[in-house]
Amino acid sequence: MAEECYTELEQAIQVLVANFYKYVSKHSLVRNKISKSSFRKMLQKELNHMLTDTGNRKAADKLIQNLDANHDGRISFDEYWTLIDCPYMVYPATDLCK
Amino acid sequence: MAEECYTELEQAIQVLVANFYKYVSKHSLVRNKISKSSFRKMLQKELNHMLTDTGNRKAADKLIQNLDANHDGRISFDEYWTLIDCPYMVYPATDLCK
Repeated sequence: MAEECYTELEQAIQVLVANFYKYVSKHSLVRNKISKSSFRKMLQKELNHMLTDTGNRKAADKLIQNLDANHDGRISFDEYWTLIDCPYMVYPATDLCK
Repeated sequence: MAEECYTELEQAIQVLVANFYKYVSKHSLVRNKISKSSFRKMLQKELNHMLTDTGNRKAADKLIQNLDANHDGRISFDEYWTLIDCPYMVYPATDLCK
């Protein structure tokens, strides 16, 4: 289906999904998960207006720890989605670790 | 902050959030929730490519029932977010009630 016929909401969902797969590890052993280092890069590159202090490694690691529900040291799609749903996102320019 | 300086991901998040509030009940007693009828309209108007059969009232009601975690007959932001995270969304043109 041609991109432009999708609604604005559908296009936004596709951006969110595509962004996840942009940062997913290319390592075959770690399918469909984002490594800690890639997740930090994503925060700095993709969410640096909505989140402040994204360059702060300690803050980023704390956020990753909060999101990493199964504690495997990587971020799955559902854990990624929780980040975007959390209050940090809805109220722009929120410190990473309020 | 000017819209255009947000990243593509941040703009997509804003679209998702704005869409929720576009359908939220204006009724003061029902703050920050989407009514069943408004949610049906949203499915038909905003997700009619990613979801098929959005006009099917029975299918829509079943989806709403699945999403309505606290069974108050309305859709909160978190419940709305669950819809967008679910496999229906990630694999376009999926039947509402697979």
